Amino acid sequence: MRNPKSVVLVSGGMDSVVALHHSHKEQEVVAALSFHYGSRHNDREIPFAQWHADRLGVPHLTIPLAFIGEQFQSDLLAGSGEIPKGHYEEETMKKTVVPFRNGILLAVAAGLAESRGAASVCIAAHAGDHAIYPDCREEFMRSMGDAIRLGTYAGVEILRPFIAMSKADIARHGHDLGVDFSRTWSCYVGGEVHCGECGTCVERREAFLLAEIPDPTQYLSTGPLPPKPAAC
Amino acid sequence: MRNPKSVVLVSGGMDSVVALHHSHKEQEVVAALSFHYGSRHNDREIPFAQWHADRLGVPHLTIPLAFIGEQFQSDLLAGSGEIPKGHYEEETMKKTVVPFRNGILLAVAAGLAESRGAASVCIAAHAGDHAIYPDCREEFMRSMGDAIRLGTYAGVEILRPFIAMSKADIARHGHDLGVDFSRTWSCYVGGEVHCGECGTCVERREAFLLAEIPDPTQYLSTGPLPPKPAAC
Repeated sequence: MRNPKSVVLVSGGMDSVVALHHSHKEQEVVAALSFHYGSRHNDREIPFAQWHADRLGVPHLTIPLAFIGEQFQSDLLAGSGEIPKGHYEEETMKKTVVPFRNGILLAVAAGLAESRGAASVCIAAHAGDHAIYPDCREEFMRSMGDAIRLGTYAGVEILRPFIAMSKADIARHGHDLGVDFSRTWSCYVGGEVHCGECGTCVERREAFLLAEIPDPTQYLSTGPLPPKPAAC
Repeated sequence: MRNPKSVVLVSGGMDSVVALHHSHKEQEVVAALSFHYGSRHNDREIPFAQWHADRLGVPHLTIPLAFIGEQFQSDLLAGSGEIPKGHYEEETMKKTVVPFRNGILLAVAAGLAESRGAASVCIAAHAGDHAIYPDCREEFMRSMGDAIRLGTYAGVEILRPFIAMSKADIARHGHDLGVDFSRTWSCYVGGEVHCGECGTCVERREAFLLAEIPDPTQYLSTGPLPPKPAAC
């Protein structure tokens, strides 16, 4: 590759932390980039993003996007309604949408990549991403990739190394890379420990089970996992 | 039109202020949106954006994007190098680039539009925009438009009502709409009054001359305008 420098989006969740370790092995990561956009679980997950970046010797940056919490409406944001439990489903999970979140995060990452001489922005999008979020869909990602490539001098590319993988595949890959998953955060509720019941907790628990690797997470509740709805 | 609600990007420069008045006539403007991204002239121009929004009874919002000033490199940002004088030219004006600025501003505007039930984001892009900025080019705008439409539930559209107009055409249109141009700001230097010599001041002076309307701007220098280089 001509210019292997990359900016990696790292929320502190398990997928993006694996993406950071994966990218660090393959490229020079000029920044591990977290966003504090006012969501309840940001305070839990960003310190983990920082921890992994420090461990790998990668500069970590947190971009404050407080205006999203102040000006945008979403139940994912601090102080708004209750987070729905169980699997992602159209009606309940629409409430957790931060409008055009991936568009905003990728645009900021692209600007930073351009300003730091990086050729790419890496995002841990994967095959299990939810089609109910329009800014997770393939056609959005393709257009956003075009916009970023065409809108930067360097022709910055979006990299999605996990796009053909499931969350369980990513967990297995992270396990092989030696990722300490106890230092990652998924729960949207944002309590002291993972709730074990919200959409992201359910998916986290399933990923470890399907990957057949130990789950080091402390959950408030480890009741039976809900059956997966046909729509997902 | 099905849903005539719009978010309008208003920096406080003459083009975007005319776009606000134009949109207000045609649609319900749910927010006039300014960004403080750490540029030297933001403190001069944003109060004018606020003034016009207040006058039209449109909610005005300033989104702080201070991280751009802190983390991105550009001579347009406070504290960095000297702003080049005269017409925009590839080598000197590359220094004034804020990497992927239009991508970031449009992405944030799209998220706000989605969250406030607006069907469109209006930007005062025009025929004289500089092809040296990749995020001003037609192909970028087209891809970004696709990304925003596909990445939002409402299919938010980018509107560019002035895309076929010159800056002089916009000045004339604003004049017809009764826009008070003394309350708009162009100068990139960000002094007490317009310098009259930087790239944006030169274009401002030319626009009024070509439109054959009075220029109410107070300039520090009103020396002869430099000849327009062939490349522009």
